[in-house]
Amino acid sequence: MIDPTINFGKNSVADFKVGVDNVIFSVDTQRNRLLILLVKRPHDPFANYYSLPGTLVCTGESLETAAYRTLSEKIEVENLYLEQLYTFGEPGRDPRENETSYEQRYLSVSYFALVRYEDTNLITKDNQKAVWHLLKETPQLAFDHNRILRYGYQRLRNKLEYSPIAFKVLPEAFTLNDLYQFYTTVLGENFSDYSNFRARLLKLGFLTDTGLKVSRGAGRPAALYRFDEDAFALLKDKPLVFI
Amino acid sequence: MIDPTINFGKNSVADFKVGVDNVIFSVDTQRNRLLILLVKRPHDPFANYYSLPGTLVCTGESLETAAYRTLSEKIEVENLYLEQLYTFGEPGRDPRENETSYEQRYLSVSYFALVRYEDTNLITKDNQKAVWHLLKETPQLAFDHNRILRYGYQRLRNKLEYSPIAFKVLPEAFTLNDLYQFYTTVLGENFSDYSNFRARLLKLGFLTDTGLKVSRGAGRPAALYRFDEDAFALLKDKPLVFI
Repeated sequence: MIDPTINFGKNSVADFKVGVDNVIFSVDTQRNRLLILLVKRPHDPFANYYSLPGTLVCTGESLETAAYRTLSEKIEVENLYLEQLYTFGEPGRDPRENETSYEQRYLSVSYFALVRYEDTNLITKDNQKAVWHLLKETPQLAFDHNRILRYGYQRLRNKLEYSPIAFKVLPEAFTLNDLYQFYTTVLGENFSDYSNFRARLLKLGFLTDTGLKVSRGAGRPAALYRFDEDAFALLKDKPLVFI
Repeated sequence: MIDPTINFGKNSVADFKVGVDNVIFSVDTQRNRLLILLVKRPHDPFANYYSLPGTLVCTGESLETAAYRTLSEKIEVENLYLEQLYTFGEPGRDPRENETSYEQRYLSVSYFALVRYEDTNLITKDNQKAVWHLLKETPQLAFDHNRILRYGYQRLRNKLEYSPIAFKVLPEAFTLNDLYQFYTTVLGENFSDYSNFRARLLKLGFLTDTGLKVSRGAGRPAALYRFDEDAFALLKDKPLVFI
């Protein structure tokens, strides 16, 4: 790591390579597992370590294009929407900075998505294949990718609390218990008790009873709801709805 | 501008300089004005245009350090906390990319802060002085800084709706009308009617009546409130409070 107190060449402007790294989550709703997309690095630095799927930005290429390019080689998924997460650029975050010259820095712009598990297909290319890994058993990753992943997980939790992101990946019709399970899988056990959760969500008025019921296991048939985009849009336009 | 469809050197990795640009807002509560900090560029590109205060990141320097460094030359303010906003990196966003070589790109990592107007002091250095400019009369800025500024203004609006950012820059004791004026100055007229605003905020339970009253103009004396950090923290720990 570089000692940032050392003054290299009297404040000369630094040269950077820019990478993009993708934090892609999905929820396996059948088995209630929160998953993160990882790839194994075939070469140094950090050969054989898992990392977030990423690449360096090429000449003439935008950051977003680079992020989509590298993902398209690893996963097939419909309607992928990448959201910029955070930019990490401390001196010394990439060991290649030491190998060549202190003047060459590596910056990472990270992107975030939650995708529908059932709609994804992992691609094998050059004998390399991306994997879905249990978030709670994430190993030591290459570079500062554990840190980037923690940041991404925090974003996912926040979005679940104030945005309708869950409804983009749940089936179109779902029971309130399905929705509760989804939240529990992402936020952890005991994030809220079920009756509070149910009452709060129904009160907000953007869940519509489809009139259909579904039987699962031993209990009574449960009502199927759908997310009402229009009712939610009305809430969104009302300033201060979130406080 | 570069035509991004041209393939430069078969996907070679691009070289970047990295800039930081700061979107610094303040609210002049005496005159109900929303202000943005700008500097006039002394040299090309965009000589004599206003821009957001920024600089290029130097060797051995972190992004944050660069952002604080350039601000410290332009403004004195207590407890400045910069939050990373967004990273802009499209090919062709800086005219210097054309002048030298297509391979040299310029990326901007933007930072955001809302500061207390009364606590700031603008510094004159090398005959240059930063200025507070009325947001609604922002001129054409250098580079893509109007776009960065729009992004920052959206962040400010969002934060007002779901975070207690207003209480960090209002005086410790304030009337509900002061608070309403502050919100109106940032969000624009008619963002909410006063009685709704008042009822909603009081119901949330984090405004405490100080027991003091203040007379302003002809009306009845108005109660002074303070923001109760502890009461707000309880709300924050409750998942789903914002939906």
